[in-house]
Amino acid sequence: MATPRLSCSFKNGVVGLGNCTKVPRNVNMEKLQHSYIFREIDRHELMHKEKYPHGTVIDLGIGDTTEPLPTVITSSMIDFVHGLSTKEGYKGYGPEQGEKCLRKAIADTLYKDLGIKPVEVFVSDGAQCDITRLQLLLGSNVKRAVQDPSYPAYIDSSVIIGQNGEFLAGQYKNIEYMKCGPQTNFFPDLSIVPRTEIIFFCSPNNPTGHAATRKQLEQLVDFAKVNGSIIVFDSSYSAYITDDSPKSIYEIPGAKEVAIEVSSFSKFAGFTGVRLGWTIVPEELLYANGFPVLHDFDRIMCTCFTGASNIAQAGGLACLTPEGFKALKLQTLHYMENARILVDSLASLGLTVHGGENAPYIWVHFPGSKSWDFFAEILDKTHIITVPGSGFGPGGEEFIRISAFGHRETIIEASQRLKYLFCYKC
Amino acid sequence: MATPRLSCSFKNGVVGLGNCTKVPRNVNMEKLQHSYIFREIDRHELMHKEKYPHGTVIDLGIGDTTEPLPTVITSSMIDFVHGLSTKEGYKGYGPEQGEKCLRKAIADTLYKDLGIKPVEVFVSDGAQCDITRLQLLLGSNVKRAVQDPSYPAYIDSSVIIGQNGEFLAGQYKNIEYMKCGPQTNFFPDLSIVPRTEIIFFCSPNNPTGHAATRKQLEQLVDFAKVNGSIIVFDSSYSAYITDDSPKSIYEIPGAKEVAIEVSSFSKFAGFTGVRLGWTIVPEELLYANGFPVLHDFDRIMCTCFTGASNIAQAGGLACLTPEGFKALKLQTLHYMENARILVDSLASLGLTVHGGENAPYIWVHFPGSKSWDFFAEILDKTHIITVPGSGFGPGGEEFIRISAFGHRETIIEASQRLKYLFCYKC
Repeated sequence: MATPRLSCSFKNGVVGLGNCTKVPRNVNMEKLQHSYIFREIDRHELMHKEKYPHGTVIDLGIGDTTEPLPTVITSSMIDFVHGLSTKEGYKGYGPEQGEKCLRKAIADTLYKDLGIKPVEVFVSDGAQCDITRLQLLLGSNVKRAVQDPSYPAYIDSSVIIGQNGEFLAGQYKNIEYMKCGPQTNFFPDLSIVPRTEIIFFCSPNNPTGHAATRKQLEQLVDFAKVNGSIIVFDSSYSAYITDDSPKSIYEIPGAKEVAIEVSSFSKFAGFTGVRLGWTIVPEELLYANGFPVLHDFDRIMCTCFTGASNIAQAGGLACLTPEGFKALKLQTLHYMENARILVDSLASLGLTVHGGENAPYIWVHFPGSKSWDFFAEILDKTHIITVPGSGFGPGGEEFIRISAFGHRETIIEASQRLKYLFCYKC
Repeated sequence: MATPRLSCSFKNGVVGLGNCTKVPRNVNMEKLQHSYIFREIDRHELMHKEKYPHGTVIDLGIGDTTEPLPTVITSSMIDFVHGLSTKEGYKGYGPEQGEKCLRKAIADTLYKDLGIKPVEVFVSDGAQCDITRLQLLLGSNVKRAVQDPSYPAYIDSSVIIGQNGEFLAGQYKNIEYMKCGPQTNFFPDLSIVPRTEIIFFCSPNNPTGHAATRKQLEQLVDFAKVNGSIIVFDSSYSAYITDDSPKSIYEIPGAKEVAIEVSSFSKFAGFTGVRLGWTIVPEELLYANGFPVLHDFDRIMCTCFTGASNIAQAGGLACLTPEGFKALKLQTLHYMENARILVDSLASLGLTVHGGENAPYIWVHFPGSKSWDFFAEILDKTHIITVPGSGFGPGGEEFIRISAFGHRETIIEASQRLKYLFCYKC
């Protein structure tokens, strides 16, 4: 018989229901601050709905696609699923790195003329999941730098893998926060950024919507070369670039020796629920001892992953056909027109508005404000969910991120509500 | 300009193509032994096909489902995909923990009468991926025990997270290998197993095919309670249990206070390529400080995962309807009849054959042999791919695992080829 143990309860607000094990809680999990930002926002939404049961909430918080998938893409998936019910069309496990044809299509279509080989393309279930797998790949003993503000997954997954240290003034001691505010055109002042082994960099940036210019990315690649660092470049929003900013880090000469690129079908193809992404690890990327990073990432994919859903992969392949590509272009134009409507409305009120040109995110400055307070005020007065900028790091304080994903009528309605609020305020 | 660096190359066989970064290779990745077993087998298969271009290879290696999906399941997925192309049916991000209806269906159908709540069910893209996420949850400072032999992902992911130590005599110093051979009815002698914080346990076991009895699992739960350990119980093959062995660890009273359960639609529903699984973390499971494990796992799912494909989830829901369940039962019976055919053939030759009763894996003993040699001999003489037992740990030496997944005609053909080989050998 088991020795009876005393029942125990957790002191900081959460009460345990049974007997405790003797397994210590992972110190890295203990170090994570607050809950995940989008869960936190959900919580606010729920409270708001209780307070205003008749208010029509518009969600411009999490950047979630809303437009139906083009039938050229769904037809391909339907054919594939139908095949799964036949002896000839049934498929079991695929390669953990993704179907060969899809790896080739990504290399040929999205990295045309950049010399990316299919073997360097790893198909996955999305960029966020790949970021965690990259953290496992890189381990807990290398220091990370992140843009400030930046998408929270880079920091949170770094904390989970063990690169954290004390949390002081909104920052983890062992993570380098590179200020990327409007003062420096949303690019870090690299002359004051200390060397780190890893640099997370997202362009077009989530949350600011800024796409790094060619010159900025040249500086970044040069900085990584001088420091012997690896850039983890997140290009999940590259399909929204309208000017001549690079859509891939590999447009910069020499980047293959210093950069991994993470990307996704989520925003490019409306696959946020279907789940499909990819990561490029160039053969030329080597650790200090000369060992190719690609070999270890391949091992991570085989051990910690089992391949993206083959149905999603069939859909991904259809996205990369000329018809698929054309249909998806219309969708990105739709969201970018949404962005223009929101930017125009807010700018016409004299607000300082960034983003919305190369990404469907609008980054609005409210000098002197606390962004959670402002988030709460907007929600309370307009029933619109946004994201408080400080949720993306200390550099996001005083800002609000507004997503331009949505049906046109919703965006127009939101834009009118915001106009009314801010007009009233001015 | 970047300072030019000397080009470098990796000394142990892999030559780098470019300049090195200064990022050290992750020591945990360095500690992984050899390559991933199923990649290694693929390599052997490739060499074999070059040697015998006209030999018809039968793959009884990796346990991969082969039978078409029942149309009741594909129809549901087709309806869902069709919906994605309409304004009403389009869906973006779902909850990271899985759709509410699927979490409820899993709790109600597969854990009926066991008191598992939907909130304790986390839907995922498969058991192997969840095992890695559990490693992230638990961290690098708690010691793991694994069955020997066992599915390699438990050990490899433990090594990747940092629980490894020196590799000597086929074992990592910081991992406890619990011998589970036929001498002890495939269950560890718990009187000699030292305490570890975590115990990975798979039943029905991959590779041995053995389903732990109720008495064995009662002993395991009691052992975990006495030691304050957490069991990570892998029930991915539970749909194949034909006797009264427990299909879930939660059939054992008190297990909710000491066990997490990982499971999958892969083998139960032929979803190896579609990708869908789940993990149960009971509310009653607490760390030593009383903090609920569920809260941290929820955070891991939100930060390191973005939800399983919504198409796969629609399919999963169909699997759990009475019609889906009935159709899938026929498939498990098909594979188990395959297993019977293989077991009968091999046993009729006087070979010592285990498994095949509660799982579609057959575990054949070849006393005195090296399992990689025997694997090579079988491949060379019969063109059949199997898995060398030593690939599952030192306890698998002298054994070969044969998968019973396959079309009936393939299994009959394989069974004849094996009969011929072993008859000739006796």
